[in-house]
Amino acid sequence: MTASPAGGDAGSIAALEQLYGPRSESIDRANAEVLRRLDESVPVLVDVAAARDVVPQLADRTLLHCGPQVEWDAVCDPLRRSLRAAAVAEGWAADVEQADRLLADGDVRLEPATDHATVVPMATAMGPSTPVFVVENRQGGTRAFAPVNQGPGETAWFGRETPAAIARLEFLRDVAGQLLREMVVAAGPIDVLALAAQGVQMGDDVHMRTQGTTSLLIRNLLPHLAALPSPGRIELAGFMSGNHLFFLNLAMAAARSLTLAAEQVAGSSIVTTMCRNGTTFGIRLAGTNTLFLSDAPPVEDAMYYPDFGPDVAAPDIGDSAVLELIGLGGAAAAGSPAVAGFLGGRISDAVAVTEEMAMICAGNSSRFQLPTWDYRGTPLGVDARHVVDLGIAPKITTGILHASSGIGQIGAGVATAPLACFRAAVLDLAADA
Amino acid sequence: MTASPAGGDAGSIAALEQLYGPRSESIDRANAEVLRRLDESVPVLVDVAAARDVVPQLADRTLLHCGPQVEWDAVCDPLRRSLRAAAVAEGWAADVEQADRLLADGDVRLEPATDHATVVPMATAMGPSTPVFVVENRQGGTRAFAPVNQGPGETAWFGRETPAAIARLEFLRDVAGQLLREMVVAAGPIDVLALAAQGVQMGDDVHMRTQGTTSLLIRNLLPHLAALPSPGRIELAGFMSGNHLFFLNLAMAAARSLTLAAEQVAGSSIVTTMCRNGTTFGIRLAGTNTLFLSDAPPVEDAMYYPDFGPDVAAPDIGDSAVLELIGLGGAAAAGSPAVAGFLGGRISDAVAVTEEMAMICAGNSSRFQLPTWDYRGTPLGVDARHVVDLGIAPKITTGILHASSGIGQIGAGVATAPLACFRAAVLDLAADA
Repeated sequence: MTASPAGGDAGSIAALEQLYGPRSESIDRANAEVLRRLDESVPVLVDVAAARDVVPQLADRTLLHCGPQVEWDAVCDPLRRSLRAAAVAEGWAADVEQADRLLADGDVRLEPATDHATVVPMATAMGPSTPVFVVENRQGGTRAFAPVNQGPGETAWFGRETPAAIARLEFLRDVAGQLLREMVVAAGPIDVLALAAQGVQMGDDVHMRTQGTTSLLIRNLLPHLAALPSPGRIELAGFMSGNHLFFLNLAMAAARSLTLAAEQVAGSSIVTTMCRNGTTFGIRLAGTNTLFLSDAPPVEDAMYYPDFGPDVAAPDIGDSAVLELIGLGGAAAAGSPAVAGFLGGRISDAVAVTEEMAMICAGNSSRFQLPTWDYRGTPLGVDARHVVDLGIAPKITTGILHASSGIGQIGAGVATAPLACFRAAVLDLAADA
Repeated sequence: MTASPAGGDAGSIAALEQLYGPRSESIDRANAEVLRRLDESVPVLVDVAAARDVVPQLADRTLLHCGPQVEWDAVCDPLRRSLRAAAVAEGWAADVEQADRLLADGDVRLEPATDHATVVPMATAMGPSTPVFVVENRQGGTRAFAPVNQGPGETAWFGRETPAAIARLEFLRDVAGQLLREMVVAAGPIDVLALAAQGVQMGDDVHMRTQGTTSLLIRNLLPHLAALPSPGRIELAGFMSGNHLFFLNLAMAAARSLTLAAEQVAGSSIVTTMCRNGTTFGIRLAGTNTLFLSDAPPVEDAMYYPDFGPDVAAPDIGDSAVLELIGLGGAAAAGSPAVAGFLGGRISDAVAVTEEMAMICAGNSSRFQLPTWDYRGTPLGVDARHVVDLGIAPKITTGILHASSGIGQIGAGVATAPLACFRAAVLDLAADA
């Protein structure tokens, strides 16, 4: 522990004395099993299907959203817009005004995607017709889902609700979903994290930047894309070619399939859920059902598009922080010149983020090796004890949305998770003796 | 100069005293112009066409080959096989035995590709029907050419002459060439070295490894590939998907378009041609017509496929060392974990190669920046004076072929250019007062 453990908080210190003391042996054993589950399984992409056909317990007239559960009144502006766009795309409302009334009246149900083995980035909202990646973790006995990434520009996952944003949702449903399914079935199971491991050696943190992994995936799928029927083939090719974050959602589904398996281990201090809805930030430890909440934090180490700044930035949002839990994103910062660009510009600045993550992690990935970190594996398994003890919270590489104007993405940066929810989780674990 | 300049060779010392002394001002001025030409122009891919239609002064029944001019009797085994395969693919011979007789009898003319503004990697031989990339350097007023890369495995550029290797040449001519032309024309001019600059930040040295650049190029071309006619489209997609060195030849053509422009500057000590045929290694300085020759060196820092080793390795071969002259390959080693793998395995080992190249280069690329080298530009402009003075020759990242069995590639590694040809070039420049 540091000279001033847990920031001097008496309750936290007492909890840590338990968790590092008499309880340490059982917790370390549970953590070792969690680490094994996060590190050794091989999630594979096996299908693309409509959410209603594969996502468990997804009722009609329900929209899944990022982050913890949230009432309509508390939903942040970008997510409201995304929910309205999704309701229109589902055909439940003729326009966003009508969609707003349906949502305000509770005629469309809101549920957290994370409760449905599903992860969605930024302000994504998705209805039952949304095409999702189906990723199987056969060793762990889990399946997880993520919608196909909506791409750059005027899109609902960035909090836009324009006709173009709604048309993109319809294109994904009506054109891309079926063609992607044909490609994926023809290609056979795709080892998602083998691609991510290559990407980590190509400057991707596989969160903020998936340029390398997206390009590798496209090259792998190329013969199957060429064999698709026309004219959807050409439209899909244009969409994939222009979407450098195409791989993001796929990596998230793979990550979730690992954390779902890890979540079945009782009595661990390792974080297996970390998600944000732009209002609250939630974490869960393996083996518990409770999501501990804090206010969603701002994105601090940020670069903004011209004419925008922190005064108009929405708080940190999205389920994509699941990537930081399996050794990607902030954990893989050291390998990414793109992330370094947000942190002072030097690779050593990005290495510092990885090294900080290492201080609060229980192990290292054997899958994701960082050439710029002497080929060590990325830090793996965020231990809430270490977070509270050291006062160091995980760093999350992420985009930034406008807080109110509906203009969409205005920048990107590195967010720091709020400490309060980790403290609450540690107190709960200590109380649960 | 070092304590023992030029290895103590009296002739070299006298030449360097001229070239660093009274002649330095005019040489430095010429070198600055050479550097500008290597650094500032923007080569663009504009077309893919049969060599006979675009390569200057290419007569019928002529095969272009890698490296300096060479008589049939002195041609190394892998290049012999490649020449025979090309003669069969051109329809001049029914089989490789007949091709051998034609070549031995001088009924097929051999000319260095480098004399035709063309660069070819490894043991490539190419006839007039070969599809070539056409790269324009509009600022420099030059055009350069390179054949479409033949891909991995059983292929003639690795010194194979099997039916499969010949069939690959026929596929490139009969299927790939026309379809690539359609894609390139539809895409419009492609800035080749902008892709290379991105690749350098994705672990490519853009010589031994073009995984990132190949994938980026494919993603850029994707909408145009999707629009190609069937069934060639599917076959081409399979070929491109499986060829991680697809970008190599394109980068070489772009590099040659720069060195051709630089070669028009008189009185410079900067190397503008560096090529090998597996028998001899040749260099030329800007503004001279003489190619100074040494014996082709072995590839020393090498990793071999199982069951192979240096005893059966052909010497260093191919025109691809043109890449080292524009800041790629060995000059860009610091950014490439793949190259580091051949040099001890740590990024610092690869950085050492880049730093050694910096000692013999006249400047730095403003185009290719290395995150692992504090974002400095790769060393640019190999100055033959520095090479002779310091006794440090350029490092070249390259593949290794079997010397005699026709089995093809057996490994890869880093070759060191022979010093003797640099000494001869420096003596010639000093004499040319």
